[in-house]
Amino acid sequence: MYRTIRIISRPRRSEIAAVAPGLIKRLRERGLSVRYDHETASCVSQPDGILPREELASSSDLLIVLGGDGTLLAAARSLGDNSVPILPINLGGLGFLTSVTQEELYASLEPVLAGNSPVSERTFLEAEVFRGTESLARHRALNDAVFNKGALARIVDLSLAINGEFVVDYKADGLIVSTPTGSTAYSLSAGGPIVEPAVPAFVITPICPHTLTHRPLVIPESSEIEITLREAEEPVFLTLDGQVGVELHTSDRTRIRATRQKLRLIRPAGKTYFEILRSKLKWGER
Amino acid sequence: MYRTIRIISRPRRSEIAAVAPGLIKRLRERGLSVRYDHETASCVSQPDGILPREELASSSDLLIVLGGDGTLLAAARSLGDNSVPILPINLGGLGFLTSVTQEELYASLEPVLAGNSPVSERTFLEAEVFRGTESLARHRALNDAVFNKGALARIVDLSLAINGEFVVDYKADGLIVSTPTGSTAYSLSAGGPIVEPAVPAFVITPICPHTLTHRPLVIPESSEIEITLREAEEPVFLTLDGQVGVELHTSDRTRIRATRQKLRLIRPAGKTYFEILRSKLKWGER
Amino acid sequence: MYRTIRIISRPRRSEIAAVAPGLIKRLRERGLSVRYDHETASCVSQPDGILPREELASSSDLLIVLGGDGTLLAAARSLGDNSVPILPINLGGLGFLTSVTQEELYASLEPVLAGNSPVSERTFLEAEVFRGTESLARHRALNDAVFNKGALARIVDLSLAINGEFVVDYKADGLIVSTPTGSTAYSLSAGGPIVEPAVPAFVITPICPHTLTHRPLVIPESSEIEITLREAEEPVFLTLDGQVGVELHTSDRTRIRATRQKLRLIRPAGKTYFEILRSKLKWGER
Amino acid sequence: MYRTIRIISRPRRSEIAAVAPGLIKRLRERGLSVRYDHETASCVSQPDGILPREELASSSDLLIVLGGDGTLLAAARSLGDNSVPILPINLGGLGFLTSVTQEELYASLEPVLAGNSPVSERTFLEAEVFRGTESLARHRALNDAVFNKGALARIVDLSLAINGEFVVDYKADGLIVSTPTGSTAYSLSAGGPIVEPAVPAFVITPICPHTLTHRPLVIPESSEIEITLREAEEPVFLTLDGQVGVELHTSDRTRIRATRQKLRLIRPAGKTYFEILRSKLKWGER
Repeated sequence: MYRTIRIISRPRRSEIAAVAPGLIKRLRERGLSVRYDHETASCVSQPDGILPREELASSSDLLIVLGGDGTLLAAARSLGDNSVPILPINLGGLGFLTSVTQEELYASLEPVLAGNSPVSERTFLEAEVFRGTESLARHRALNDAVFNKGALARIVDLSLAINGEFVVDYKADGLIVSTPTGSTAYSLSAGGPIVEPAVPAFVITPICPHTLTHRPLVIPESSEIEITLREAEEPVFLTLDGQVGVELHTSDRTRIRATRQKLRLIRPAGKTYFEILRSKLKWGER
Repeated sequence: MYRTIRIISRPRRSEIAAVAPGLIKRLRERGLSVRYDHETASCVSQPDGILPREELASSSDLLIVLGGDGTLLAAARSLGDNSVPILPINLGGLGFLTSVTQEELYASLEPVLAGNSPVSERTFLEAEVFRGTESLARHRALNDAVFNKGALARIVDLSLAINGEFVVDYKADGLIVSTPTGSTAYSLSAGGPIVEPAVPAFVITPICPHTLTHRPLVIPESSEIEITLREAEEPVFLTLDGQVGVELHTSDRTRIRATRQKLRLIRPAGKTYFEILRSKLKWGER
Repeated sequence: MYRTIRIISRPRRSEIAAVAPGLIKRLRERGLSVRYDHETASCVSQPDGILPREELASSSDLLIVLGGDGTLLAAARSLGDNSVPILPINLGGLGFLTSVTQEELYASLEPVLAGNSPVSERTFLEAEVFRGTESLARHRALNDAVFNKGALARIVDLSLAINGEFVVDYKADGLIVSTPTGSTAYSLSAGGPIVEPAVPAFVITPICPHTLTHRPLVIPESSEIEITLREAEEPVFLTLDGQVGVELHTSDRTRIRATRQKLRLIRPAGKTYFEILRSKLKWGER
Repeated sequence: MYRTIRIISRPRRSEIAAVAPGLIKRLRERGLSVRYDHETASCVSQPDGILPREELASSSDLLIVLGGDGTLLAAARSLGDNSVPILPINLGGLGFLTSVTQEELYASLEPVLAGNSPVSERTFLEAEVFRGTESLARHRALNDAVFNKGALARIVDLSLAINGEFVVDYKADGLIVSTPTGSTAYSLSAGGPIVEPAVPAFVITPICPHTLTHRPLVIPESSEIEITLREAEEPVFLTLDGQVGVELHTSDRTRIRATRQKLRLIRPAGKTYFEILRSKLKWGER
């Protein structure tokens, strides 16, 4: 069913080089159109069909991402308003997002190409930073937007409003606004709950709050979140998916909401959300 | 706009007796129909208009509940399939659900009677216990369904399935399945997150789990939850809203899902969810 | 160096029967005096040398305990004021206390019998319950004294004093007073810290406290702890090491302190506290 | 009983200026020798008796510290091997360490000067950083030694050894080694227990550990702790009491142990440790 395949890779040669050429050959033998980014090309002996990364999504039926969770997070941010389904292949350990391993690649491929694999829709968040009336930066994230103090600073002082209503101030090391997808990433380390990806919600988790009654907060995905940096002696950093950073000053406001577009993640058979969770968290072992 | 008022009270005389007669008189002076349950009647000198509690909801436009959160939880279970809006008045401290205090009663009443106060819809859960193919008990709850070991038992061994898929086993003191409304009750004490009432979700929070990697789990409200008691040397108890109890034996299964009907809670002006949260949790004080 | 050996077993036949006869034979071949309790005798074809459990400790140089952590906890309570060193052999999985496995038994035995293995001293606690001026019960525990509500009760209301000074009230599911040894047992599930056995301290850990600012409390081992049951609609239970229970009524006071006597636990080579911790908690795996 | 008084202040004029001149006059009227540091002098109209801060401790019977917990932490580091008793006066809110408020100053002073107030001994830690065989820095702290990642870094990778034995690796945002005094400071925000100051122990609390089975660890005060930075893409910072910082590189080792010297803190009547705890943590309020 999928006919136009595009491949995005992580720029680490040996693992990609072991997989990419065979995969491209296999797909083309089936009569499918295959093109790929420069990172993939660097692992192929006579590359043909290179496309700039920003053109890959718009021209394809199916995007195969070779790498780990980090590669997928970066690829996801390059999608623009495109909602092409993604098949993430993990070259390394098991990831929360990239659950198909190298060994399972070819077995997984057939039902996927036939269009028989279920698709899990994932919420994106979009964070926009304002200084006064000026928009400084706008980024999206699949996992989380994190506000973090510098290593030598003692505290971050943030104010949270939801849909224009003041909610609470945080004196803490930082604050995490996470999608359900990101709830098993940094937010989990900071004490946040695990949120099944189909729950239309954000999690707001403080990092080492000084007020002992603070608890992680789960709010509707339709919320418009605004976080104001109340006072900062030293710079505070906003990072998106741990990959893109913005330096914040006193009184900067960050507006966070869900994008209309969802990420469409292909889930091969036998890789349900809870199976991956059990495996990653070693549930059931004591 | 509301014309047929019914009153439910907690059976504690002095507080009710100080409020109920004046309230009834006031409502009747406005030409409204007012009737009430036996508990309220016991606080009125010459009661007229008594109705059995189970008839109160079906015959009314507006239900006024005099008491605390516990009175409201009990009243809510008596509603059947009725979805009459409820105005809860707190006679005592501030409650999470019963945010209008005695002092604010009359000031709150006017906009409520005029139909101008917003209504917050709250999810109910319904728990049904099966032994083999037989249904043993079926109850609903506004806050939570709690599985708890006896005081002398050492552990409860429960298995969780969602929509027919095995999720995980718990070896713990117990397990809480909570609505968003219940997330600020027992689940919070056990380490669960605060879930805004509009999030269509359940929280599953283990109580003192032996496996250190267990975390609270937030799942869609549309989930069908099944919890099986795997093995119990001593009786295990299921309690609904801390008020109704069922004794469980080995292999008993409890099915939990959201009811179609919602509880409709009237929120007078100036009593938003986050205001009550800040006040109850003493956020902002250090 | 050790010449008079006594053996205590858990009453589960198959595992003991596979080990005990060979062990007894081996020890006697070395010219050592060996006697054992009724549980061990029941696993030996022609038992000789049976002693009542309460006489075993007083007549021996070395006590070998065959079973798991539970067997050791029970054996420890039978020691009276005796401080005979104990070699615990785990017949089953790895225990926190009984770290020598069946496979390692004979290899461990030689250096132990030669008196070359280090001994880890463990603090006992002793809990005495008073109703008015009357002493109701007195028990010791190696792990913990636990106050627990019944399954249907909603709360326990306890007051803590240390060395005669009021410290704090707890509204909670319960309260754990733990030795360092017990810090990796129930207290850990309730959120308590891991306390290395050589720290002269107790840990006081609330179970699901309603007050969100409560935290586990570590106090000197020399403290005299008094816990008063302030009010109880339903019975509250005090359990020692999860094995002995006392029912408490309103106003009952429980006094807890360290015993002068220590438990002397033999630690064979290559079984340090942190090695066992890493293995049991699966540290290092992700 | 105390005859030679020295005063150390926080350099914030208005509060000190309101207190210091009167205090100095009062003490001198009693025939006591009084001298002070430059910060105090700047708040006195005709200063006499200025001493460099490093000479203050060695020449005195009693050190009065005017400021907050931060002023005391800084003063404590200037003591060298001196063990002069300290009376900390809080000019501002209530502190954990500086529990005497401005209003209570003169009432507290009499029993203190008479030598009738109890002294609480507090453990200092000393951290020394090694790069290869070279000692880079050595600092002491009353609260804690904190290892922290930079704001844009994703993780810190640290290895813990105690008394030369490998204990565990941490992948986390950071790691806190805290004295009992520091257990109510940063370690508490990171999930650590409250440790009564008389417990001879350190607390090791990870900050947002990736491994979900990590728990705070309480170890004997006599331990020699060594923490090695395993790998760092970006600089990692060690801070002492949040006031002094050292930049760490890959393979740097930090050795932490208790100093022989204790801090001697005067506790005026009615200011016990648990009273301050209840007041600061708002225990008893719900």
